[in-house]
Amino acid sequence: MTAKEQLRLMADKLRVHSLRMTTAAGSGHPSTCLSAAEIMSVLFFSIMNEHDEFILSKGHAAPILWAALAEAGLIERDELMNLRKIDSELEGHPTSRMPLIKVASGSLGQGLNAGAGMALAKKLVDQPGRVFVLQGDGETAEGSVWEAADCAAGCKLDNLVVIIDANRLGQSGPTRHGHDLVAYESKFSAFGWETAIVDGHDVEELGKALALAGGTGRPLAVIARTFKGKGVSFIEDKEGWHGKPLNEKELSAALDEIGKADITLPSKYSPSRPSFAFHDYTANDYSLTDSVSTRAAFGKALLNLGRTNAHVIAIDGDVKNSTMSDGFFHAFPERSFQAYIAEQNMAGMAMGFSAMGYIPYVATFAAFLSRAHDFIRMAQYSGANIKFVGSHAGVSIGADGPSQMGLEDLSIFLAMPKAMVLYPSDAVACDRLVREMARHQGIAYLRTSRDKTAVLYGNGEEFPIGGLKVLRQTSSDQVLIIAAGITAHEALKAHAVLKKKGIAARVIDLYSLRPLPEADLVRHAGECAGKVIVAEDHYGSAIASLVSLVVGKVTSLCVREIPRSGKSAELLTLMAIDHKAIAGAAEALLD
Amino acid sequence: MTAKEQLRLMADKLRVHSLRMTTAAGSGHPSTCLSAAEIMSVLFFSIMNEHDEFILSKGHAAPILWAALAEAGLIERDELMNLRKIDSELEGHPTSRMPLIKVASGSLGQGLNAGAGMALAKKLVDQPGRVFVLQGDGETAEGSVWEAADCAAGCKLDNLVVIIDANRLGQSGPTRHGHDLVAYESKFSAFGWETAIVDGHDVEELGKALALAGGTGRPLAVIARTFKGKGVSFIEDKEGWHGKPLNEKELSAALDEIGKADITLPSKYSPSRPSFAFHDYTANDYSLTDSVSTRAAFGKALLNLGRTNAHVIAIDGDVKNSTMSDGFFHAFPERSFQAYIAEQNMAGMAMGFSAMGYIPYVATFAAFLSRAHDFIRMAQYSGANIKFVGSHAGVSIGADGPSQMGLEDLSIFLAMPKAMVLYPSDAVACDRLVREMARHQGIAYLRTSRDKTAVLYGNGEEFPIGGLKVLRQTSSDQVLIIAAGITAHEALKAHAVLKKKGIAARVIDLYSLRPLPEADLVRHAGECAGKVIVAEDHYGSAIASLVSLVVGKVTSLCVREIPRSGKSAELLTLMAIDHKAIAGAAEALLD
Repeated sequence: MTAKEQLRLMADKLRVHSLRMTTAAGSGHPSTCLSAAEIMSVLFFSIMNEHDEFILSKGHAAPILWAALAEAGLIERDELMNLRKIDSELEGHPTSRMPLIKVASGSLGQGLNAGAGMALAKKLVDQPGRVFVLQGDGETAEGSVWEAADCAAGCKLDNLVVIIDANRLGQSGPTRHGHDLVAYESKFSAFGWETAIVDGHDVEELGKALALAGGTGRPLAVIARTFKGKGVSFIEDKEGWHGKPLNEKELSAALDEIGKADITLPSKYSPSRPSFAFHDYTANDYSLTDSVSTRAAFGKALLNLGRTNAHVIAIDGDVKNSTMSDGFFHAFPERSFQAYIAEQNMAGMAMGFSAMGYIPYVATFAAFLSRAHDFIRMAQYSGANIKFVGSHAGVSIGADGPSQMGLEDLSIFLAMPKAMVLYPSDAVACDRLVREMARHQGIAYLRTSRDKTAVLYGNGEEFPIGGLKVLRQTSSDQVLIIAAGITAHEALKAHAVLKKKGIAARVIDLYSLRPLPEADLVRHAGECAGKVIVAEDHYGSAIASLVSLVVGKVTSLCVREIPRSGKSAELLTLMAIDHKAIAGAAEALLD
Repeated sequence: MTAKEQLRLMADKLRVHSLRMTTAAGSGHPSTCLSAAEIMSVLFFSIMNEHDEFILSKGHAAPILWAALAEAGLIERDELMNLRKIDSELEGHPTSRMPLIKVASGSLGQGLNAGAGMALAKKLVDQPGRVFVLQGDGETAEGSVWEAADCAAGCKLDNLVVIIDANRLGQSGPTRHGHDLVAYESKFSAFGWETAIVDGHDVEELGKALALAGGTGRPLAVIARTFKGKGVSFIEDKEGWHGKPLNEKELSAALDEIGKADITLPSKYSPSRPSFAFHDYTANDYSLTDSVSTRAAFGKALLNLGRTNAHVIAIDGDVKNSTMSDGFFHAFPERSFQAYIAEQNMAGMAMGFSAMGYIPYVATFAAFLSRAHDFIRMAQYSGANIKFVGSHAGVSIGADGPSQMGLEDLSIFLAMPKAMVLYPSDAVACDRLVREMARHQGIAYLRTSRDKTAVLYGNGEEFPIGGLKVLRQTSSDQVLIIAAGITAHEALKAHAVLKKKGIAARVIDLYSLRPLPEADLVRHAGECAGKVIVAEDHYGSAIASLVSLVVGKVTSLCVREIPRSGKSAELLTLMAIDHKAIAGAAEALLD
């Protein structure tokens, strides 16, 4: 049998697996797998080697990925029939629960962004191998694909290859471009890519096109004309078959049509997970007489972290002089990456770097992390190790107005069950927490503020994850005020006002929102007769909710109205989260 | 004076205003305004008329927009010097607080999406006029711009014009393409646009290029070579001046250099806000013996709504056969818009339609609304009237796995202080709430479930906004179970289990999360001795937090672990939000 005949037969074997698996599962996307059978066969059994990486961007084709991995000897063939079962690693869309998966998919149009990050990571250390991304035609409508395309061409990633499985049909109807493959080619070409149009069911054409990768200084887009459901005449190129497994009778007919696909082939593809490495760093010292913004403290901490951790990298979205990551960019240009104003790609690149064992710090305005929300959400399903930093939190940024105010960032990260969420109130805390983030294996979020605020802590202070700081307390406190970030400073002012009135308030700086110091919160609330106030510069009681669920009924002070342009102090007053509002709430509770 | 000289002088006058305003405010982005001075002069005082629309996508250039509106006689000139003050409508970035602003900006790369929606709205009724979008060069890195570009060319929007103010410099450094204007032109051309490259400081060239708009069947991109800070030699084309107002001395030198700009010109531009119109609709009836998914009920309700409301439109992201908006698409193809797999543009188009007086229903998987989070966030600052519908909520969707599960959608919408948030538990409730959403002027969110569930309510039942339904109660209830959507059905099962054990539980269907029926919740909690359980199919206690903040300490059952593929019932059990978990929690509370 010729190599070509072998690859064709393997494509059919992958078809058979995909059909059987989805029929057994009673759900899944067999027609989506069938269009990609030759592409997968050629990639896994001819093109890819031990240095290469593969991302299935069209995650709903998971069955054919599991099938290819089984045929490559990387998972047990028997396991295939457990697709989508509660105790199987072979999920409906790939996640890192299956250890060979470095980049989860299922939200379309994210694979190429992660692929760009992986290709950049390879370039960083002259690592051999290429990154192959298999993408659907429908998902090229996602703007994130063009953010990745721009980045890949700009960074001359000739070790990055995208294969567009142009099967013409989306979920609910034809794609915009159908089989107009030149439309895709023109776009990739305009974005600076090498391109090739091929018959995606011709293993020879595929092999030749994929061999073009590398050495040109440009990434490669192989646009493959395919048919959804290819190989099974009653579903091939037909609408209405997206996400529908065959019934037993249909399966039998399909298998008859495909025929015997009795072949085994060796594969050189063997992905491995990089190990995580963190080395300590030197803390930055601050004086109690200083006034320093937490964003500035973040910048200095990141710089020190970079000095002792070669795997720490920084990614910016053209705001590094605001987030203060620019110090790192100047000191370590080779480990600094400019994503320009493309936050989805910024997060996607970080995903790729994380998959290659780096510790990416991604900093932008907290408000603009919402632009990357779907990427951040998906990163948790990749087991990613990314450190997000959101500056310019809350209404306290002032005059720039609501579009620039991060007021939903805590909601984003607190809605991720495993994300570490930190919110320092001064420079010392921020400095120490940047290290804790790096030490933590997983997604972590640090919220920083724009304005300068007083240094609250001595340099010997410890900031354990899952802890809190008591800023003011007596043995006879009547009310507990919980705050973080800008409102911690307001709470201290409120404390002074209350003290003059003979009211003893305890003030807590809740710098660790997840993990949350639950027992400590309960104890402090109990010692303050259950009278608890939470003040936060965020929409929708994000922090108050955490506390309330732990200690019982609370008074929540938070942003409840649409804010506007104005000075910081004016806005704190207008939104009723300033020291006067806090003091007033305390008095009301004690009435 | 020739027309050309007049427009040049007006450009300088807009420069003078921008510089004075930002110096007075002590913040803002004068250099960004200066590059756009000729473009704004030509648009406002030569090109645009009473039929045209204008969107400032580069929102940080707000001062020159306010200046142009003042010179056009639409706002008071004296008001300009109140830029960024707490009591002025002239914010740092445009919001709808200023009534002439239909589309807020400040998160970059969103204007063209809204512009495409407005241009489509005009085409729908053969309305004259064009939509002009002024965009920065840096923001073309946002993928959303290419989603809009794809849509505009695909829909042949020759009434849409984008002007790229290519001033070469971003916030923290040069843009990727600098003054390589051909790079921009190639991209727009590949996406199917007419293009023109011009000197952006030459009013004649600008006028000629802008006159190309219309009649070609293709949208027009005018790529203007400009200089940041143009006209003031010590900042012109220089790095380090982004977002920096001049001090008094610098201002004086700048004004000397620009010279006298003593001119007034008439403008035909006069934007008006469309009025909101809602007509009632016929309810769909269901039988108490039916089993119907809320997504199916949404589809039927939307269809009926469309029958009596000509301004209701639907936008899909290639999942209409899953969200069930496809019935509307078949019945009203002219009012149905396919955004393909581009959720940011889907939301951005809706923004544009809303600005033109339509009531857009945007439906996708709840999970994928996270892709449009920044657009949804910004829509609230435009005073938008958009109805978002998220299907496939929670782990109960089963085997597709976590990437397809909407587990952060409530967090997104509950973090928007003015958004209505509805979560029906059966078909009747869903049907009635679709009408309530349309009646409401503003952003509303409806969460629907994938699986069929029992019809709980008779057709005569009312579902007022800010209400709740008591599904089970006695005069001696010992515990209160609050649920919504899929967990309401689990709660009913738990009730039955508890009853057998002699425990009386009250069961509440909390279909209205915002407005929240606060007083009713407090009363019910009190009647159940404060023993409250909230069960929800969402990350991070979103609903429990609402309740907790209202009634005090609660037991929260919610998704606390990363879910996985599996059957619906298995997942409900695994995540401990099924009827057994609920009953167990109730017993624990009463121990």
